[in-house]
Amino acid sequence: MAKQNKTFVTEITPQNEDFSRWYLDVIKKADLMDYSPVRGCIVFKPEGYELWEACQRGLDQRFKATGHRNAYFPLFIPESFFEKEKEHVEGFNPELPWVTEAGGEKLEERLAIRPTSETMIGHMYAQWIHSYRDLPLLLNQWANVVRWEKRTLPFLRTSEFLWQEGHTAHATAEEAREETMKILDLYTDFVETELAIPVYRGQKTPSEKFAGAVDTYSIESMMKDGKAVQAGTSHYLGQNFAKGFDIKFLDKDNVLKHVFTTSWGVSTRLIGSLIMVHGDDRGLALPPRVAPTQIVIIPIGPQKERDRVVEHASGILKALQAAGLRVQMDAREDLSPGWKFNEYEMRGVPVRLEVGPRDIENGQVILVRRDTTEKIPVSQESLVETLPKLLDDIQNNMYETAKEFRDEHSYTADTLPELSEIIREKRGFVLAGWCGDDACEKAVKDECSATSRNIPFDPPQHMEHCVTCGKPAKHSVWFARAY
Amino acid sequence: MAKQNKTFVTEITPQNEDFSRWYLDVIKKADLMDYSPVRGCIVFKPEGYELWEACQRGLDQRFKATGHRNAYFPLFIPESFFEKEKEHVEGFNPELPWVTEAGGEKLEERLAIRPTSETMIGHMYAQWIHSYRDLPLLLNQWANVVRWEKRTLPFLRTSEFLWQEGHTAHATAEEAREETMKILDLYTDFVETELAIPVYRGQKTPSEKFAGAVDTYSIESMMKDGKAVQAGTSHYLGQNFAKGFDIKFLDKDNVLKHVFTTSWGVSTRLIGSLIMVHGDDRGLALPPRVAPTQIVIIPIGPQKERDRVVEHASGILKALQAAGLRVQMDAREDLSPGWKFNEYEMRGVPVRLEVGPRDIENGQVILVRRDTTEKIPVSQESLVETLPKLLDDIQNNMYETAKEFRDEHSYTADTLPELSEIIREKRGFVLAGWCGDDACEKAVKDECSATSRNIPFDPPQHMEHCVTCGKPAKHSVWFARAY
Repeated sequence: MAKQNKTFVTEITPQNEDFSRWYLDVIKKADLMDYSPVRGCIVFKPEGYELWEACQRGLDQRFKATGHRNAYFPLFIPESFFEKEKEHVEGFNPELPWVTEAGGEKLEERLAIRPTSETMIGHMYAQWIHSYRDLPLLLNQWANVVRWEKRTLPFLRTSEFLWQEGHTAHATAEEAREETMKILDLYTDFVETELAIPVYRGQKTPSEKFAGAVDTYSIESMMKDGKAVQAGTSHYLGQNFAKGFDIKFLDKDNVLKHVFTTSWGVSTRLIGSLIMVHGDDRGLALPPRVAPTQIVIIPIGPQKERDRVVEHASGILKALQAAGLRVQMDAREDLSPGWKFNEYEMRGVPVRLEVGPRDIENGQVILVRRDTTEKIPVSQESLVETLPKLLDDIQNNMYETAKEFRDEHSYTADTLPELSEIIREKRGFVLAGWCGDDACEKAVKDECSATSRNIPFDPPQHMEHCVTCGKPAKHSVWFARAY
Repeated sequence: MAKQNKTFVTEITPQNEDFSRWYLDVIKKADLMDYSPVRGCIVFKPEGYELWEACQRGLDQRFKATGHRNAYFPLFIPESFFEKEKEHVEGFNPELPWVTEAGGEKLEERLAIRPTSETMIGHMYAQWIHSYRDLPLLLNQWANVVRWEKRTLPFLRTSEFLWQEGHTAHATAEEAREETMKILDLYTDFVETELAIPVYRGQKTPSEKFAGAVDTYSIESMMKDGKAVQAGTSHYLGQNFAKGFDIKFLDKDNVLKHVFTTSWGVSTRLIGSLIMVHGDDRGLALPPRVAPTQIVIIPIGPQKERDRVVEHASGILKALQAAGLRVQMDAREDLSPGWKFNEYEMRGVPVRLEVGPRDIENGQVILVRRDTTEKIPVSQESLVETLPKLLDDIQNNMYETAKEFRDEHSYTADTLPELSEIIREKRGFVLAGWCGDDACEKAVKDECSATSRNIPFDPPQHMEHCVTCGKPAKHSVWFARAY
């Protein structure tokens, strides 16, 4: 067992030695993904895909509860569609893969693989929307999209990825803006309460907004190396796409008007964020609400007692499953308990349940928390009552721990050298004043590779001067290096 | 109301006048889909997509209950992969769309959009499988696939469609064959008990099997025009892909062996089948287990009583929702009850619940079955108890009705002229003897456009002579025209 432990530890690079290496070690060792033979595309293995399924469940029920319905639009987008919204084509053109031949023939018009579906959906909305009675139109799509990336990183930046994209149309700007914010709230709720990831909510600067949007809002999460991951975005598109695709309706006042649209999405990037926010040198750590397995039962004790212990443990397994808990048992004979302890810690299972001969006699089991490593003896009788509470407690503790880490690594800076030093030395997010000039924002990036994350709605402090030019600040902005 | 009724009726072509027209009328009128600007690709609108979601739910839980896990593999398949299984490339090459440029550059190797993923998954399995301990490997993928079709028909044949594809690897041929049949059983169970569609189970003839399979098994359903839809297929692939992609494992006897694989899938074709099996001149008819809305509540009565009735109906709505029923209410003021009755019949909602002032006084409501049009007065108190039973009854009745129709339109034929006459005049499935010669099978197709559907496991009768050549029959085969 000692030997296995040693082998195990050497397989995951410690976070403070090389965070990128740690990330790649963990996702391979926890069997979340594999590289594919197609550049920049990964295979989502079951352990990784199940995290996406958990995200789908949590989000889909929230979408439906707020009146959205799912639909599905074509993968292919005719080249001419991209021409209809100028900023959109400029933003996405460099990343598009093109289908030029199909069914043995050269196509008359090239077809892009969708990088996002505003154009296709805009085209369809123009045929579906005629009157104010057709509004609001609130649709969502679960789909694969492709953006041909030069530098890729599993989950966080891949050429093909999975996501949901919501697309809504409204009669008024006000209503569309309300929808944009409602979705940002919905994303915040999901990411904070289910993924246990605290986020900074705010508005993107013009240089960082979605190609074709009037305003983009984001939730930004901090990884354990202090870098940012944009966890979700919600765009107010105004009438940009409505005009490009001629989406008009006859309003109550009998006047023909263009609609106002929104779009919003989260993707399999969330998996990367989940790993980098909660993981540690022992591997993954999954919040109970989204962990595919919440509890792993490991029978222990000498060989001669084995059958009795496994039978007893099977009874516990059934009782917990019947109580609606996601639980599995590892009773494999050829692997030691110690190896299994490490394995499931590495895979991030929130609770380990150990049971041996002596526990049976005492009518108890040992619960071990993945987050704190605390060992808790619990009477077997009270398990069905105790475990849900323990899982809630772990969920809350993981959120609080992540929030504490984030707050400790959130700084303010008054000058560019100061900001740059924090980014380079301490790592984390830096709140700084900004005059609103693109050039001043770009200066930060040139200086230390930190980009503006967003203009928070509730900044912890109002910064008075632009961090670059020193003029009065219009906004307080979060800057960070980002994935 | 009389006028609206008339308008309504003229909008759906009667089935016996023009079945194809009826189909297209119904799917447009029930708002299930729309045509897209990309050739052969449709948009799945919410009413249509929700039918697919119901299929996903029912199948996904069955896959998981039998030990399968979901994963996700890339959309793109390198051209060279298709060369590795000869029959496979011949079968799919003519239908492939090719990405030749991406990210502003011409690709060194063309990438196909997946028509199915045996090749990509075979490539990955070769890296994942090393020992008998890695077997069986039981994965499933929910994905979009593309087959560039010349003649398309919404849901039944589209260039892009949605499906699930299972891919499993096993240590022995026997185990792989067991898996193939287990999945055919699983599909049968889902299609018969949830979609209420009776199927003929059997094996495909060699000319109709999957490109690259050793044996293909199918479930075949009969539409109301007597034509067939293949509702699901399960393939035993033997070692064909294992050899093409070099998927080997060290067996218990320390010998390196190729694995045996299977693949299986059902697609959004199921939606087309659902429509054509149950629909009638009034429109769609959805089996309660998969109907997105099982019950629609329609308040009736004079304007002055309106508020009271709607309030009362809202109470019923809440009570039924709380009981876990999928129910909605249509209390729109600008539409007459009669219009609504037609609308929800056309949309296939299994049960309509009418409630008016007199019903309130009598403490009852009127239930109207979509399948039989029967009106049933039920005391409001007993609703929560009555409705689930009624829904079960409708489900069973729809299955029995479909089965009766199928059995009435299933024939036998001893000679080709006889078979041809039945196909042309009576429409339906014809069981006929077959000597096993491809040419004799092809003769049937040339004569009357009927293809072999499958060789049923339990033919209603054993046919003695080949329908074409008159020699002794090796098999009894179902022939039918097919979508």
